[in-house]
Amino acid sequence: MRLAVVGAGAVGRSVVDLAGSHGHDVVAIADSQTAVVDEAGLDAASVLERKSERGSVGDADPRAVLDADYDVLVEATPTTLDDAEPGFSHVAHALDRDRDVVLANKGPVAERYADLRARERESDGRVRFEATVAGAIPVLGTIADYGPAHVSAARGILNGTANFVLSRMAAEGLSYEHVLAEAQDLGVAEADPTFDVDGTDAALKCVILANVLSEGATADGVVEDAFTLDDADVEGIRSIPPSALDLAGEDGRTVRLVGEATAEGARVGPRLVPDDGPLAVQGTRNVVQLETDAAGSLELGGRGAGGDETASAVLADVNRLAD
Amino acid sequence: MRLAVVGAGAVGRSVVDLAGSHGHDVVAIADSQTAVVDEAGLDAASVLERKSERGSVGDADPRAVLDADYDVLVEATPTTLDDAEPGFSHVAHALDRDRDVVLANKGPVAERYADLRARERESDGRVRFEATVAGAIPVLGTIADYGPAHVSAARGILNGTANFVLSRMAAEGLSYEHVLAEAQDLGVAEADPTFDVDGTDAALKCVILANVLSEGATADGVVEDAFTLDDADVEGIRSIPPSALDLAGEDGRTVRLVGEATAEGARVGPRLVPDDGPLAVQGTRNVVQLETDAAGSLELGGRGAGGDETASAVLADVNRLAD
Repeated sequence: MRLAVVGAGAVGRSVVDLAGSHGHDVVAIADSQTAVVDEAGLDAASVLERKSERGSVGDADPRAVLDADYDVLVEATPTTLDDAEPGFSHVAHALDRDRDVVLANKGPVAERYADLRARERESDGRVRFEATVAGAIPVLGTIADYGPAHVSAARGILNGTANFVLSRMAAEGLSYEHVLAEAQDLGVAEADPTFDVDGTDAALKCVILANVLSEGATADGVVEDAFTLDDADVEGIRSIPPSALDLAGEDGRTVRLVGEATAEGARVGPRLVPDDGPLAVQGTRNVVQLETDAAGSLELGGRGAGGDETASAVLADVNRLAD
Repeated sequence: MRLAVVGAGAVGRSVVDLAGSHGHDVVAIADSQTAVVDEAGLDAASVLERKSERGSVGDADPRAVLDADYDVLVEATPTTLDDAEPGFSHVAHALDRDRDVVLANKGPVAERYADLRARERESDGRVRFEATVAGAIPVLGTIADYGPAHVSAARGILNGTANFVLSRMAAEGLSYEHVLAEAQDLGVAEADPTFDVDGTDAALKCVILANVLSEGATADGVVEDAFTLDDADVEGIRSIPPSALDLAGEDGRTVRLVGEATAEGARVGPRLVPDDGPLAVQGTRNVVQLETDAAGSLELGGRGAGGDETASAVLADVNRLAD
């Protein structure tokens, strides 16, 4: 497949780096200011070197990427809320051209799902977004294979930063503030960790899952009125005292930031989970449990974030489109 | 999709039962003696009722199924070794007719993989076999999405009977013979448990995984000389004394029957694993770890056997073929 990549953050750069090893060509890439297009296929190493040395991928206007001759648009600009722009317009432009789209950007699928699917129905292009939920873990592909009508619920640990903080607090008896500072030193938490510790990031993933599961609950797979972040019930981890973790520990349990999605909606909050249960993963690892109608529960675990991990999910989607 | 199902054991019957809920029609089904064909679509309930009451699915010759007008042949006859017949011929017949094939029968993919793939290359039909490895767990679909060249190893608990016996032995300090008898009473172990406790069943799954991973290690994805059960290094669990489990337990570990597959081959045997690690699953549950090149390890857990569970994997393959 010939890929056009919009966004040159960690995920976009990893897609450029890894695409060749999957047999795909990158014909265009844009960062926020510049772009480079070569319909014969870009040289990944030199694009990445230029980005790293000069801060820009090329000299062309970023919009040149959208008009390049590609098979799949990879939308990897930062997630934005509400109108989910400019990501949504990038996707819409590709669908107008009957091209396939793979999203790593959660905005359009969490905030404008019904609109996105409506545009997909009018297009010969297809939309996939495995990378938007739990990084490298094949959650959406598995739901697609089983059929969303056959998965009643998804539940899991969907934010590595929050999980790192909670597992360290429980293991060491340290305060939230102490562990967060440590996580920031280690590069596990961002300077502004709000999105992670307040549950917003996990909630966006649960909203996406709820939208997918909603399609399974309709007769024709068409959701007219999709969920958005505003519909999710979200509570973060800032106010959990070490004493709560101690109490849970005495009872063979621990606290985790658990996200849940069904066709009825999405919620995220601190929950007591058994110490030896599947949701008590350690560190930054993610895990998702899917409840199926005929095959019991499935547990899918792995790395939920990271450039190469998320790019691997993007390329898994591209591989499916190529199949 | 219009399905023809060969084999009316637990898996074949579950496929007939569940196909409609996935939007597929069953147009033909055969057991070992009889068949019924209705190209307008069979009524699942009445076929299953007849099978249960009279022991046969219909009055036609079983070979009528192979010549029916179907899209996908579901091969769900019992696994046989060496020439993998009659399963292999069923698959070959479908490919000769340019039809897709989904296997639940491990024989053709474990014992005649190169031959099977060669016939697939000559056909417009495609072959899928998710159900042959770890029941409901999406192992092969995940490897396909990542690309086999990007998965260096698969390792896991691939036999529920052996795992049930080992987890009960460890938890209760009971002997192998005692727990096996208990498992037979519960219907977890078969009257002749040889295939499970000697590691043969897990080894077949590992051989299949090794064959898939081998394709990733070639330039063109063509394996000329595939692995068979004879190539696998296999040791079962019959000779493990309770004292070995006690010793492991004192060290924070336990014993599990672990299967491993790489492009270099397959092996199965009792291994020490950490008590709190991902391979120390309890009871009949299965788990598979995949080592990827760019995304770390993935852990996929769920029910590894059972009619509905295995049929769910068959239907996941059918859903992919329909996509």
